[in-house]
Amino acid sequence: MKTLNPDYPDTVRQIFERAAFIVDVGIQLGAIEVGAYESTLAILPRHLQQHQFVHAGVLATMADHTAGAAAGTLIEAGNSVLTVEFKINLLRPAIGESLRCRATVLRGGRTLSVVESEVFARHDGTETLVSKSTVTLAIVPETPRR
Amino acid sequence: MKTLNPDYPDTVRQIFERAAFIVDVGIQLGAIEVGAYESTLAILPRHLQQHQFVHAGVLATMADHTAGAAAGTLIEAGNSVLTVEFKINLLRPAIGESLRCRATVLRGGRTLSVVESEVFARHDGTETLVSKSTVTLAIVPETPRR
Amino acid sequence: MKTLNPDYPDTVRQIFERAAFIVDVGIQLGAIEVGAYESTLAILPRHLQQHQFVHAGVLATMADHTAGAAAGTLIEAGNSVLTVEFKINLLRPAIGESLRCRATVLRGGRTLSVVESEVFARHDGTETLVSKSTVTLAIVPETPRR
Amino acid sequence: MKTLNPDYPDTVRQIFERAAFIVDVGIQLGAIEVGAYESTLAILPRHLQQHQFVHAGVLATMADHTAGAAAGTLIEAGNSVLTVEFKINLLRPAIGESLRCRATVLRGGRTLSVVESEVFARHDGTETLVSKSTVTLAIVPETPRR
Repeated sequence: MKTLNPDYPDTVRQIFERAAFIVDVGIQLGAIEVGAYESTLAILPRHLQQHQFVHAGVLATMADHTAGAAAGTLIEAGNSVLTVEFKINLLRPAIGESLRCRATVLRGGRTLSVVESEVFARHDGTETLVSKSTVTLAIVPETPRR
Repeated sequence: MKTLNPDYPDTVRQIFERAAFIVDVGIQLGAIEVGAYESTLAILPRHLQQHQFVHAGVLATMADHTAGAAAGTLIEAGNSVLTVEFKINLLRPAIGESLRCRATVLRGGRTLSVVESEVFARHDGTETLVSKSTVTLAIVPETPRR
Repeated sequence: MKTLNPDYPDTVRQIFERAAFIVDVGIQLGAIEVGAYESTLAILPRHLQQHQFVHAGVLATMADHTAGAAAGTLIEAGNSVLTVEFKINLLRPAIGESLRCRATVLRGGRTLSVVESEVFARHDGTETLVSKSTVTLAIVPETPRR
Repeated sequence: MKTLNPDYPDTVRQIFERAAFIVDVGIQLGAIEVGAYESTLAILPRHLQQHQFVHAGVLATMADHTAGAAAGTLIEAGNSVLTVEFKINLLRPAIGESLRCRATVLRGGRTLSVVESEVFARHDGTETLVSKSTVTLAIVPETPRR
């Protein structure tokens, strides 16, 4: 895959730093390459649901935002991405010390991108795939109008 | 639709009160009936993303959890619901003062439920549909094993 | 909703008549209005799967194509729609004499439309909702390049 | 992955041979292993839509049914699989001489399986990924009641 923005690492970092909800939840940026992005989260009690698993909303937030960052590595400076829709399958209960999300672009188009996001839970030194998502994003001018 | 749990209002209220992430995000329970549930959220700066819209992760969290509550109104005491998967379409930018989510059971089965969740944003006194989700949930004993 | 094409009934009829697979499966156009479309199918043995229910692929084909027709009622002449993605939930086994699909536009945009499709099975005079889909479509010039 | 049915090749072959719609469309079984399945289709004019691409309904039918076969390689004799829901992204126009679908089990559970299906189009000797799906299936006794 080819990027249209040589400064993509800086551009995409801002997708993380300027998104208040991502900062609030505690999701942190990780490894970056053209067409792929990683993020991490230290699991805290406030991330859980009533069975003491990480809430599906946390996994969905991480999957969606990291997908946006992966799509963002490919686009021209001055453009931005907006999620059109996504689907997430919760494969196994998410328990442990931390989460890692890896998002990979399946198709990077001029107006639409499709990205897959996998979230892994680390528990006692072992990583388990806990969710898989497919995210469709629109590429829009930086001041989006929908 | 018929409920298998005459005490469903109390049972389902606990799905909200015991889910730490829901309390953390600030989602509050609203109107309840057999097969349907509402929740609300006062939009705060921490819920936003980089374009100052409510983050898709907030909408997804609300859609998923409220769907679980709607499915929970139908099931026997001693059982619980776990999200298997969901899909969300972001229809319009979510801006305004507050969100309202309405979840309605499409199919309430013995082992699986399918629920639709609509989220509306209230802005200057007008409500707009900003997302629509379909959520599949498994009905499991209260101490779930997957 | 407003259409950009006063001749939309003719335009959309062609979406049915020129799609070889739709003709092959036997799906027929039904009622049409701005932002909504219906289609019907007489269930034949060749539409079934191994449990003698209508195959999910038949329901998906009907849901997708009828959604495209509903989105097509809104767009300018000279444009066309292409499915970006869809999700379908199979709610109950599809058995009976015929199917009816009703597709309704949730959001009709300039570049993307989101449509819901419900398929009902008619059996001994009673209609049952057997599937629900959400379909995202791109609006493209008539000679599409993706 | 481990299978619960040593005779899985025979069992799963029947999922293809007894499904009338699959035979009608012309989808043929391909390579089989525990937790994965392939199928193929020679593209004919009757499979196309109005832009002369393979219809999304053909891709969805292939993705769904091959996913069911992949899930079927893992389950006990006497059980069966039923699709609960699936999502498909159409990544690129499907044109060419033939399609190949590869389905891989992401999670093989006691009551639910989650399977991914990729469809590739072969055109002038080159294969291109044209769709990706995620399919959720329920494992039910051979005479299913939902």
